[in-house]
Amino acid sequence: MIKLKREEIQNLVQSELPEISMASDNDSLFNYGKDWIDFYVPDPSIILFPKHNAEVIRIVSFANKFSIPIVPSGGRTGLSGGATATGLEMVVSLKNMSSVIDFNAEDETITVQAGMSTQALQLEAEAKDLYFPIDFASKGTSCIGGNIATNAGGIHVIRYGMIREWVVGLKVITPLGQEMKLNNGLIKNNTGYDLRHLFIGSEGTLGIITEATIKLTRKPRETVVGILGVHDIQNVPKILSLFKKDLVLVAFEFFTNIALNHAIEYGGFSYALTRDHNNYVIFEIENLHEKGIDDLDQVISNLHRLGYIHEDAIAMDPSSINNVWKHRETIPVALTRFQPYKNDISVRTSNIPDLIIEMNLLLNTQYPDFSIVWFGHIGDGNLHVNILKPNTWTPSEFKAACDIVNEKVCQLVEKFEGSVSAEHGIGLIKKPFLRFSKSELEIEFMRSIKKIFDPNSIMNPGKIF
Amino acid sequence: MIKLKREEIQNLVQSELPEISMASDNDSLFNYGKDWIDFYVPDPSIILFPKHNAEVIRIVSFANKFSIPIVPSGGRTGLSGGATATGLEMVVSLKNMSSVIDFNAEDETITVQAGMSTQALQLEAEAKDLYFPIDFASKGTSCIGGNIATNAGGIHVIRYGMIREWVVGLKVITPLGQEMKLNNGLIKNNTGYDLRHLFIGSEGTLGIITEATIKLTRKPRETVVGILGVHDIQNVPKILSLFKKDLVLVAFEFFTNIALNHAIEYGGFSYALTRDHNNYVIFEIENLHEKGIDDLDQVISNLHRLGYIHEDAIAMDPSSINNVWKHRETIPVALTRFQPYKNDISVRTSNIPDLIIEMNLLLNTQYPDFSIVWFGHIGDGNLHVNILKPNTWTPSEFKAACDIVNEKVCQLVEKFEGSVSAEHGIGLIKKPFLRFSKSELEIEFMRSIKKIFDPNSIMNPGKIF
Repeated sequence: MIKLKREEIQNLVQSELPEISMASDNDSLFNYGKDWIDFYVPDPSIILFPKHNAEVIRIVSFANKFSIPIVPSGGRTGLSGGATATGLEMVVSLKNMSSVIDFNAEDETITVQAGMSTQALQLEAEAKDLYFPIDFASKGTSCIGGNIATNAGGIHVIRYGMIREWVVGLKVITPLGQEMKLNNGLIKNNTGYDLRHLFIGSEGTLGIITEATIKLTRKPRETVVGILGVHDIQNVPKILSLFKKDLVLVAFEFFTNIALNHAIEYGGFSYALTRDHNNYVIFEIENLHEKGIDDLDQVISNLHRLGYIHEDAIAMDPSSINNVWKHRETIPVALTRFQPYKNDISVRTSNIPDLIIEMNLLLNTQYPDFSIVWFGHIGDGNLHVNILKPNTWTPSEFKAACDIVNEKVCQLVEKFEGSVSAEHGIGLIKKPFLRFSKSELEIEFMRSIKKIFDPNSIMNPGKIF
Repeated sequence: MIKLKREEIQNLVQSELPEISMASDNDSLFNYGKDWIDFYVPDPSIILFPKHNAEVIRIVSFANKFSIPIVPSGGRTGLSGGATATGLEMVVSLKNMSSVIDFNAEDETITVQAGMSTQALQLEAEAKDLYFPIDFASKGTSCIGGNIATNAGGIHVIRYGMIREWVVGLKVITPLGQEMKLNNGLIKNNTGYDLRHLFIGSEGTLGIITEATIKLTRKPRETVVGILGVHDIQNVPKILSLFKKDLVLVAFEFFTNIALNHAIEYGGFSYALTRDHNNYVIFEIENLHEKGIDDLDQVISNLHRLGYIHEDAIAMDPSSINNVWKHRETIPVALTRFQPYKNDISVRTSNIPDLIIEMNLLLNTQYPDFSIVWFGHIGDGNLHVNILKPNTWTPSEFKAACDIVNEKVCQLVEKFEGSVSAEHGIGLIKKPFLRFSKSELEIEFMRSIKKIFDPNSIMNPGKIF
């Protein structure tokens, strides 16, 4: 597709776009050419740093004129290769576009440039005595534009939904270089197809998001956290149901004893329960009123009475809360040394026990050497499946086996009508598995929509499909 | 576009689709050919009543084969002519498809056929000790399919959002007769463009929604209602802000003294305040805990201290709550005898005072005989503008003047970057005004998307654009 060589592109950019900040040293090409996945060899032609919308438009028009593809780039914390440049694309980094454009106290909305980090937006909201509820581990580095382009989720989805529910306005530059404003910060606006929702989750394939208007909300009150020991995994969705009925859940996380044992071995916290259990749940509730703790006590007693849980520990002060959360937060870190093969899937919560049981059965039979570690945001049906490399296997043997396993995982996800990418998007890595979550027909419509917006195929080509 | 005559279409349907229930008597053609707007002359060729998806597919395939347009039809309570058939279209009524397909207690989701009424769904949820929060006056007649096709709003949007936020799965029949399942009831699913959100609000132009999976929530606790007298309209958004900060708002409605006086004259309730005010707010809050009333008292005292409100009355028992709500609910009924020219617009809430002031100034200068009545769901920026016919004007004089006024209303809405249709959709009536809320570019993309899904232009043609 690209006919120009690296130097030709660099020379063209320098002569046609002399006013744009750019970088072409090897370090920049490497760092800006990849996300948090090391699977691909980054190979962009040049990195551009526009300072405002007019410069983005200039770049996109240039890209069209010379048919040079663009990879829009934010914090590059993705886990699917969606921001990866492997074929001499120009990376358009929004890092110099990170300002607040407008804050409206009455509307409780903030308009920011797409290069602002997730955490910076959280702090902007906090400074106004308001709250931006999207939160996840990479918040210090990830950017709002990327959050929206991948419909970011995170740890508070059960209470606040995905970022989709907080975007009330977008400014995008289309692949033909036109500026388009979508929805203008309105709450109610039924005037035809809502293109805003098409751009959310489009992974940079339909245009470059340059500004977003975000709805904020009131800050949550104090929270209470607890850890539960659960023998029978089939009871986990029932426990979730009872929590949702009477309490305001902010988080509901799940992990197996295998996962916990890795975390305990890694250390850094003291085990909050006294006995071993097959499975664990950590919950966080917002304590809205004085009776909150009584309500919680009642739910916990009820769960014991029903035989759904076998031990519990409740944390109310900051240091105990922190200690309970570490049971869950330590798991991914503790697994790193096993070079785990990761997956990020979702099913309806009621299907989670059967999915885990069937998957374990399948893998234990066919790959008895594999240790499978389950944990995740089970409250919204999202599970992280990690397969650990056995010591006796070489990395390449392991990778080859996991690629086969992945196909089987996806087949099971399809059987339960789940998603092969709950919150990480498709990017490059999950392209072969898209067909397990979307029908041929739906993928064909997606392709046709892409062609409408990007007739010259210059915007993040090769991603999603 | 239609080459066949009415009888030819009827004969064709009878010979090609003998198994489908149908009606072609004059009453049916009239009743199923229109929504709640009397502006258009209904003229469908035949009314079809499929009983299941396979029959819908049969009908759509037939429509393609003979190039006969289809108008998908639910409860026909729309106010924009979106379900109107004026050119020998076949109306496909979903009224025989109104069953519950599945309820999942653990997922708290219900899957229903599109012809189920809004109220029936509310009752289904209630029977399961859960809650479907979309609520509005026509709920007894309107259908879920139509609710989704028009992204229904209503009185609880400030707390629960539009129906868009409650749809976790759709089954649609595309204009080429293919069945397509979207999102499968998942909470997290980042696998490419979310076509579900394209169908929500598409007003039957992209296909026929036949089934929906709806997320339910816990029932709200008891609520407290109050009415506030407000002198200066500029303070209304500030009042809203203070309510949102400390209380859980379920509704926040606004009306002027002109609106209230019409309601009082109409009667049926006792005025809850003691003095006259320029503007009024009715709020409803969810009383989440014992301290709730103290919190409310504090907000109210604060509003008095700041000089934002000048009188208040709080209702806590069902009959007082009912009486307060009647101040607002009586307004549209009371206006009917003035044959009002209605509009349904939205702006960001902070812009509401300036919009009302500018609009009143403009209309009072240019149309001093007109009485303008403002009321609406101001908590989410949605205002209903009603212009009353002066006694001395003939209906046709009035209609002609209002069409000019409407253009000016839309120009002001555009100036404030608002929406010319907050919750009623575009249909036929608002087509001339779409350009005030959407750019040429955006409308062009919408047209292109329509062509992808409906290459033969058979699905609700002429609606939206």
